[in-house]
Amino acid sequence: MTRDDYERRMERAGQSAAEVGLAGLIVTPGPDLTWLCGYRPPAVTERLTALVITPGSRPRLLVPELERPDAERSAGAGAVDVSGWSDGGDPYGEAAKWLEPRGRFGVSDSTWAMHLLGLQRSLPESTYGALTEMLPMLRAVKDAHEVARLAAAGAAADATYEEILGVPFAGRRECDVAADLARLLIEHGHSQVDFTVVGSGPNGANPHHEAGERVIQDGDMVVLDFGGLKDGYGSDTTRTVHVGEPGAEERKVHDIVREAQQAAFEAVRPGVACQDIDRVARKVIKAAGYGEYFIHRTGHGIGVTTHEPPYMVEGEHLPLVPGMCFSIEPGIYLPGRFGVRIEDIVTCTATGGRRLNETAREMAVVG
Amino acid sequence: MTRDDYERRMERAGQSAAEVGLAGLIVTPGPDLTWLCGYRPPAVTERLTALVITPGSRPRLLVPELERPDAERSAGAGAVDVSGWSDGGDPYGEAAKWLEPRGRFGVSDSTWAMHLLGLQRSLPESTYGALTEMLPMLRAVKDAHEVARLAAAGAAADATYEEILGVPFAGRRECDVAADLARLLIEHGHSQVDFTVVGSGPNGANPHHEAGERVIQDGDMVVLDFGGLKDGYGSDTTRTVHVGEPGAEERKVHDIVREAQQAAFEAVRPGVACQDIDRVARKVIKAAGYGEYFIHRTGHGIGVTTHEPPYMVEGEHLPLVPGMCFSIEPGIYLPGRFGVRIEDIVTCTATGGRRLNETAREMAVVG
Repeated sequence: MTRDDYERRMERAGQSAAEVGLAGLIVTPGPDLTWLCGYRPPAVTERLTALVITPGSRPRLLVPELERPDAERSAGAGAVDVSGWSDGGDPYGEAAKWLEPRGRFGVSDSTWAMHLLGLQRSLPESTYGALTEMLPMLRAVKDAHEVARLAAAGAAADATYEEILGVPFAGRRECDVAADLARLLIEHGHSQVDFTVVGSGPNGANPHHEAGERVIQDGDMVVLDFGGLKDGYGSDTTRTVHVGEPGAEERKVHDIVREAQQAAFEAVRPGVACQDIDRVARKVIKAAGYGEYFIHRTGHGIGVTTHEPPYMVEGEHLPLVPGMCFSIEPGIYLPGRFGVRIEDIVTCTATGGRRLNETAREMAVVG
Repeated sequence: MTRDDYERRMERAGQSAAEVGLAGLIVTPGPDLTWLCGYRPPAVTERLTALVITPGSRPRLLVPELERPDAERSAGAGAVDVSGWSDGGDPYGEAAKWLEPRGRFGVSDSTWAMHLLGLQRSLPESTYGALTEMLPMLRAVKDAHEVARLAAAGAAADATYEEILGVPFAGRRECDVAADLARLLIEHGHSQVDFTVVGSGPNGANPHHEAGERVIQDGDMVVLDFGGLKDGYGSDTTRTVHVGEPGAEERKVHDIVREAQQAAFEAVRPGVACQDIDRVARKVIKAAGYGEYFIHRTGHGIGVTTHEPPYMVEGEHLPLVPGMCFSIEPGIYLPGRFGVRIEDIVTCTATGGRRLNETAREMAVVG
C-alpha cells in the first residue's frame, strides 16, 4: 500500500460521503482509520485522534501533539495534512474549524462517545450518523488484491484445521486445544490471533463460549471456531468435530447444519439481498424442526477486521456485490447438550459464491 | 470481590448520578463495566452490551442473547437483572424502555458512537454526557483494598526495574530490552503488559515512542516506561538510564526533571487542585529554561486501568482527595537528541503524598 493507494481510498470515501448527502467523515482510531490513511496509533486513549475527510478538500489528521511523529511516519501521511493538539487544549474546537456548522457527518462506529459528545457540543447544530450505517459499503467490496489476501488467510486457517485434527482431544482441557490452534495459526503466517473457540460437549451450545478448563471427553461434540489476521486481513472458520464415533442425533444435527450452510452458499450471487442468505440457511434448519436453536445471524463481513459489514441478517436489504467477502455460519445449539456450527468465508463473484475455506465440511472424528 | 461489593458500587454510582441531576448511567464494556458489576464480555463488538443504572431501581444488564450465559456467570450477576436481545432486534429500543425519555444520562467514555447515536435516535429528547465528565470521581477515590493492590502492582514494577538494570543495553535493539521488561513484569505477577517503552537516544525525545529496531549505543540516554495489570490493578513507572557515563547536559536535564518530580510530589495533599500538581512541576522546568520541551501533562489517574481520572493537567480544578492514585511524570524532550522522564505512582493520603514506586530516581548507569 502506497501513499497513492491511500489517497485514492480517501478520495473515494469523500465522494461516497457527498453522494449520500454528508458534509464529511470523522474517523477515529480503528480499522477504518488504518484502511483509509494507513495510520494505526500506538494506543487508543482518551486523547482525540481524528481523520477529517470533507469532499473536495485535502484530508486532515488531528492527533495529540505527542503522537505527531508517529502519525507523520505512517504510510499514508503524505496524502493528509497532519496537525497536533496539546494537552489542555480543545481538540473538538480544533476539529470543528474544519467542519460545516450545520453539516451532517459520518462518524466511525467505534468513536468514543466522549469524542462524539465533544463534537456535538462544539457544533450544536451538526448531526451525525454511524459510518457503517451511512456508508455500509465503504470497505465491504474488496478489490482483487484484498480478496487474494483474504484467500491466503483462509488457506492458513484451513492448514491449521487440518493439523488440529491430529492432536489429542480426549483427556485434554479445551484451553490446551485452543493453545494448539493459536500456535498453528501463527505457524501458518498469522500475525494476530483473534479467537480460538473450543466448545466441547455442553459448552458447544453457547455460541460465544471461548475455551475453558473443561476436560474434553470421549463422546463429545467439539465446536472449533478460530481466526485472526494474516498480512492485515482476516480469517474465520468453524468446523464441528466429534471425539470418537458420533451417535444418531449428533449425525443428524450436523447434517442439517451442513445442508443449511450449503444452501446459503449456493444462494450467493450478485443482487441477492444479504437477508436472503440468512433466510435460506434458517429455512433449512426450521424445516428440520430446529429453528428455535439457531440463535444468531448467518454471517458477517470480513476484511481488515474479522467482523464488519455486510451482515447476513434479517432486515439487511443490501444486495450482494462482486467482491464482498463474508462468513456463512449457521448453527444449532441444544442447551446443556451440544452445539454444531459450520463456517466458511465466501466471496461473491459475478457468477456466484466462491469459498475461501475449503476443508471438508463432513464431521471429522478425532481422538 | 463479591456480589455484595458490586451491589454497593452500583448503588453508590446511582446515588452519585442522582446528586448531579442525572436520570441514570449507561455503561458499555470496558473498565467501568468491570468495576461496577464484575462483567467483562468475551469481546467488544458492534453488538450492544449495556449496564443501565437508574437511581432507586435494580440495575439492568442488556447483553446479546448469545453472550447471556457469560454474563450470568459474572461475579456481580446476582446484583443485576440480566436480559438478552437477539440478532435482528433493536437493542436501543430495549434499553430505551428503562430510560426516562427526557432524561439526561451519563454514558461511559468509550461507548461506541454508533450505540450512543442509536440511543439518541430511540429517545430523541434524551441528552447525554461522558461518564468521566459527569462523575469524574466515580472510580477516582480508591478504598484501602484498592490502594493495596496498586501498591503491590507498583512493587512488581519496581522489582522489574531493579532487574532490568542488570541486562545488557549497548548493542541490543530497543525491542529486545522491551521484551525483557515484558517478561519481568509477568514474572513479578502481572497478568497483562500494557506498555514497554524503550526510547533510546533521539527516540527518547518522542514521549510516546514505544520500542523499535534501533540498536542502543554506548552514550545513549534511555527512557524506560512500563506497566500493566496485576490482580486487576495497574502499574506504571518510568526511569531514564544512561549507557555508560553521562555528559554534563544529560546530568543537568535529568536533575531538573528529578527536581520537578520531587516538587510535584511534595505538593500532594488533600484539597490541592489537580492542575496545581501540574503547575508545580512545570514551574521548575520552566525556571530552568526547558519549559518548551515539557510537552505533556504531568500525570493521570490509575486503577483498574492505567489511564483514568484524575488528570494532573492545566484546567483540572478537581481537588485531591485521600485515596486518589495517579502518576507524577514530568519530562524534557530535546528533539533529535534525547529525552528524560521520571514517573512514580502516588496516592494522596490525609497528610500528603505516598509513593507507590520506590526505586531510586537518580540516573542509573547501565552497560
